[in-house]
Amino acid sequence: MKIAIDAMGGDNAPRAVVEGAVQAVQQYGVEIFLVGLKNEIEVYIAEEYKKHNKIHIIDAAEIINNDEAPVAAIKQKKNSSMVVGLKLVKEEQCDAFLSSGSTGAFLAGSLLKVGRIKGIDRPALAPIVPTEKGFCMIIDAGANVDSKPRNLQQFAVMGALYMEKVMGIKNPRVGLLNVGAEEHKGNELTKQSIALLRNLDLNFIGNVEARDVTEGICEVCVCDGFSGNVLLKSIEGTALTIFKMLKQEFTKNVKSKFGAMLLKSGLRAFKKNFDYTEYGGAPFLGINGIMIKAHGSSDAKAIKNAVRQAKLLYDNQYLNIIGSEINKLGADNVE
Amino acid sequence: MKIAIDAMGGDNAPRAVVEGAVQAVQQYGVEIFLVGLKNEIEVYIAEEYKKHNKIHIIDAAEIINNDEAPVAAIKQKKNSSMVVGLKLVKEEQCDAFLSSGSTGAFLAGSLLKVGRIKGIDRPALAPIVPTEKGFCMIIDAGANVDSKPRNLQQFAVMGALYMEKVMGIKNPRVGLLNVGAEEHKGNELTKQSIALLRNLDLNFIGNVEARDVTEGICEVCVCDGFSGNVLLKSIEGTALTIFKMLKQEFTKNVKSKFGAMLLKSGLRAFKKNFDYTEYGGAPFLGINGIMIKAHGSSDAKAIKNAVRQAKLLYDNQYLNIIGSEINKLGADNVE
Repeated sequence: MKIAIDAMGGDNAPRAVVEGAVQAVQQYGVEIFLVGLKNEIEVYIAEEYKKHNKIHIIDAAEIINNDEAPVAAIKQKKNSSMVVGLKLVKEEQCDAFLSSGSTGAFLAGSLLKVGRIKGIDRPALAPIVPTEKGFCMIIDAGANVDSKPRNLQQFAVMGALYMEKVMGIKNPRVGLLNVGAEEHKGNELTKQSIALLRNLDLNFIGNVEARDVTEGICEVCVCDGFSGNVLLKSIEGTALTIFKMLKQEFTKNVKSKFGAMLLKSGLRAFKKNFDYTEYGGAPFLGINGIMIKAHGSSDAKAIKNAVRQAKLLYDNQYLNIIGSEINKLGADNVE
Repeated sequence: MKIAIDAMGGDNAPRAVVEGAVQAVQQYGVEIFLVGLKNEIEVYIAEEYKKHNKIHIIDAAEIINNDEAPVAAIKQKKNSSMVVGLKLVKEEQCDAFLSSGSTGAFLAGSLLKVGRIKGIDRPALAPIVPTEKGFCMIIDAGANVDSKPRNLQQFAVMGALYMEKVMGIKNPRVGLLNVGAEEHKGNELTKQSIALLRNLDLNFIGNVEARDVTEGICEVCVCDGFSGNVLLKSIEGTALTIFKMLKQEFTKNVKSKFGAMLLKSGLRAFKKNFDYTEYGGAPFLGINGIMIKAHGSSDAKAIKNAVRQAKLLYDNQYLNIIGSEINKLGADNVE
């Protein structure tokens, strides 16, 4: 499998990206195309890998920053690591693209340069968050801030197939994010969507509240991109806040430091559960190519895990399956 | 000050409610009207308080349950603790009403039986959540699942005045919940609302993301009721999940138990920060009466603190101030 990686995206680029890519080559045997400033990338490739037949550098002189307007950046910076990487997928030289750069530019670029799977109206950003009982995909977490019932229906199908085919969860439970569990609750969007979701051939469990999600009530949480973004970021933010506050308590005095030392291995195992680097990245589902958005603060391990994720999507033929499932849906899909 | 309390609402009613009410009388010198099943309430009033001139029982034979349709329940159960309590405020026999019962019924009842402050289009449920640097009001957290820009504008005014006049925070920072900090980001609602918020005479800091809220970027987080509900419940849910998982780690073996013992006081202080009972309840702002929704699982301390909150609203003449501020707004308010 051939994977293009935006070597210039994210807070720790290009070093963490290059190191993660090399680890992925060692571990998964994939072929990697590092896209970006050649001179800078080369610095971080160890001598023995410089002429490795599975690591390539594709020179791209421009970088798209987080604060640039996404569509304009994609259109203007034709020689950016983002655009060049996307083109490698479009032209079928690579099977997947991975970036820790601007989420907005990545999404805009995926749509403009690669395009959607036939039948999908809107692609979705679909990160996975830890829960008490395992993990849950939030779909959509920000690609579509104003969504329609038909979008939510497609998100449900894409999310459930991902959890089943890529993550190996049998018959994943799908919930609709809402303000209450009762059928009549919700805003216009959820009220219009629930029947559409119920009619799908999925393990749909109805409305779920945000606190049920962290408890582990479902493996796929379907939502519009605005509230999904709020859900994702408040889980991340609360966990981060609690860890910071705990650390303060643990380092307050000699007694607490000793106590924390005794708890060290347990705390480490626990923190690992809430560590985004374990889950790789968030796929953009619905794009006609394997696209993985890694976290902006990805370290080498996170990049390596994002490569593993791309490989799982590829090995399990996710794109083909989605195409045929959405096709089936289209036949009896009346909005 | 005279406060009516729904003695039958919440998971621990009537015991916790009655005990909390008695504590509040002792501590704040308020006069309490316990509304509900007289026989059941009397069981939990200690002998020395049975003839206390500041504790009264108002008999009400019916109870509204959480699973009842709110409007129908309010209309049909005229002799419920909820409706009788609300009437005490409407008829000016009491200055505030407090309930841990059904949020939906409380809101519907407040609107139908007491009504809005003149000039307010929609009242809001406004709970306070802990942050890294203090606390933040989420307004609205579920009263209006489909909101308009004008509603958000009024939420901002009501929230900022609450934090300033009731919580004593000088010039509270007001943020608009959004998917990104940049001005152009967001859904239709936030894009239409930001200019309206910017024009208010408030310390408006612009868009805020969910993870900024837990970090403590603002004291008032303005949002539609749907995403506010998601924000509130995911903060609660994540904190709960982390505490449960920590507890498992801390009781795993002798070493970890000893470590946890050394950290005991620190952990307790830390957990207190995330304890809803410390903050009392969530006010319904915009109703023409002081309405406090206490948490469904309130214990006696939570009820006592919710009474303190009602007293602060009363002592600081919150309703009068809101009335005049909204009036000012109305003059130059073009939607």
